[in-house]
Amino acid sequence: MNRSAVPPPVTAVMDVASAWLPERMSEVERRLAEIATAHGPELGVEAAATLDAGGKRMRPLLVLICAGDRSEERAIRAAVATELIHMATLVHDDVLDGAPVRRGRPTVVARAGRERAVGVGDLLLSRAFAELAASGDEAEVRELSSAAVALARGELAQRHDACDTSISEERYLHRCSLKTARLFESACRVGRLSAGGPGAEELAGFGREIGLAFQLLDDVLDITGPPERTGKARGTDLKDGTVTLPLILALRKDPSLAEVSLAALDAAEAERACDRIAATGVLDEVRERARGGIESAKRRLEGEHFSDAERSLLALIADGMVERYS
Amino acid sequence: MNRSAVPPPVTAVMDVASAWLPERMSEVERRLAEIATAHGPELGVEAAATLDAGGKRMRPLLVLICAGDRSEERAIRAAVATELIHMATLVHDDVLDGAPVRRGRPTVVARAGRERAVGVGDLLLSRAFAELAASGDEAEVRELSSAAVALARGELAQRHDACDTSISEERYLHRCSLKTARLFESACRVGRLSAGGPGAEELAGFGREIGLAFQLLDDVLDITGPPERTGKARGTDLKDGTVTLPLILALRKDPSLAEVSLAALDAAEAERACDRIAATGVLDEVRERARGGIESAKRRLEGEHFSDAERSLLALIADGMVERYS
Repeated sequence: MNRSAVPPPVTAVMDVASAWLPERMSEVERRLAEIATAHGPELGVEAAATLDAGGKRMRPLLVLICAGDRSEERAIRAAVATELIHMATLVHDDVLDGAPVRRGRPTVVARAGRERAVGVGDLLLSRAFAELAASGDEAEVRELSSAAVALARGELAQRHDACDTSISEERYLHRCSLKTARLFESACRVGRLSAGGPGAEELAGFGREIGLAFQLLDDVLDITGPPERTGKARGTDLKDGTVTLPLILALRKDPSLAEVSLAALDAAEAERACDRIAATGVLDEVRERARGGIESAKRRLEGEHFSDAERSLLALIADGMVERYS
Repeated sequence: MNRSAVPPPVTAVMDVASAWLPERMSEVERRLAEIATAHGPELGVEAAATLDAGGKRMRPLLVLICAGDRSEERAIRAAVATELIHMATLVHDDVLDGAPVRRGRPTVVARAGRERAVGVGDLLLSRAFAELAASGDEAEVRELSSAAVALARGELAQRHDACDTSISEERYLHRCSLKTARLFESACRVGRLSAGGPGAEELAGFGREIGLAFQLLDDVLDITGPPERTGKARGTDLKDGTVTLPLILALRKDPSLAEVSLAALDAAEAERACDRIAATGVLDEVRERARGGIESAKRRLEGEHFSDAERSLLALIADGMVERYS
């Protein structure tokens, strides 16, 4: 991970847990880099670029924090596998969306074509299970294979719902739970399981809630931009036909938005649609819900299974979600 | 599996092992059908069609035969997972190739678009590991995740080599071993492992050799057709830019074939290229090699770990490969 690209909450977490966390995260990075170069020239360039693009590494960070400062090899493997599953999804999502740019860089599909992108995603996903299987972390395989199933279902559900402005809030939330919240949930649960500690279910609930908040805030960002911060054009989801909570809520306040034909938007029209959604005032409502989710997530850690140090690390991560997006 | 579509060697195997094998294969089919319908309407239609299209079910059959007549639940799960991995690969390969037809039916990508096909493949692959993880078959997860990595590498290698008529025979064989032979090898190995029996390595070698023979014969079929038997047009691989052994060997006998521009072939030109390859006489050479591989595979089973009944079942499968393609 390019340290200069690390977002503030991650830096804060690293500082608070400087005695053990940075070293383990570096080991996770080292292994991800090794995997990127271990499969010959066919995978090399694209996978290296994918892994190197970095991103926030929120999921492996959650695995390691939930595993705690006495965790060992199993936690590191679970962290690597979790990030590999996430990356596989990103690479394949970009194929689905035909996305030209992610995190401000060209996507694998844009650089190397659809064929390679499908193969690279398959390889990363398979490698995740190979990583866990290497020394038989059975509970982790169970947890992360279910999460990978949920991710694929979430993506299929999103495609299924494309351009359908009549979908309900519940349906949207169900999709978010499959597509995003579930891997956060699993990251927390496998972290704790890998260390054999109690409190795995509380942590899973924590992960689920911050994951959902993460998605809500991400959907707000698609409307507000700015592109130089999000690394993609405003209204990218809308142009893809993805109906998100801001649009669902805005439609209630401004029913004429239903006349916007999502599938046919050009860049300028997508920006205008974003402005109209923002004008209804729903973005604050969505942000408020996300904040409520973050607070609820933190309350799950009040029990006896957690030390003050753990609570404060996890609160930093949770609060960081909102900070990054406010 | 639609019994009328079952190829003769499978029927013969089922008859010889009628006391135990058909019942177990039916259970595998039942579970595959259940998985196809267990993921909501998003997956339903395409996955059901994919699973239903049937195919030869060679891999789960090998798992069950190698597990033997006293095998139980673990073998059935391994058989299901192996077929799911194979199907995930088929669905994704068709995205890569933009293939309109497989086994004489429209592909998922042709029916439902690239987006759904990527998602369906991801779901089937993830579900394979979820299936194994459900009750902690650690050795099976290890084996099949490595096989899935090999499959993805094989597909990437094939893309990497596309249209390159200078690739060596060794490179071609390496690709076949990743793309095809490895999953046959793993099917045999996990079958035996799931039953805790000795002889897993001999069976793995058997699987590897018949898998390679299978691929060689498949590559011959791409040249010879006929389409009504293969379910796809002659020269489909050539049009995709896939340089196979028949072409590699033919280039030595007729160097002017190097002038054929694979990437730009239309259907009629692809057929003419097939005729030119066949005219060099190399197809018999490739068939002969495949037959040699089948014989060598069978010799691996001469040791003490195998009963006569097992040997004859596996020989039926092995010989069936050649019969189907001769």
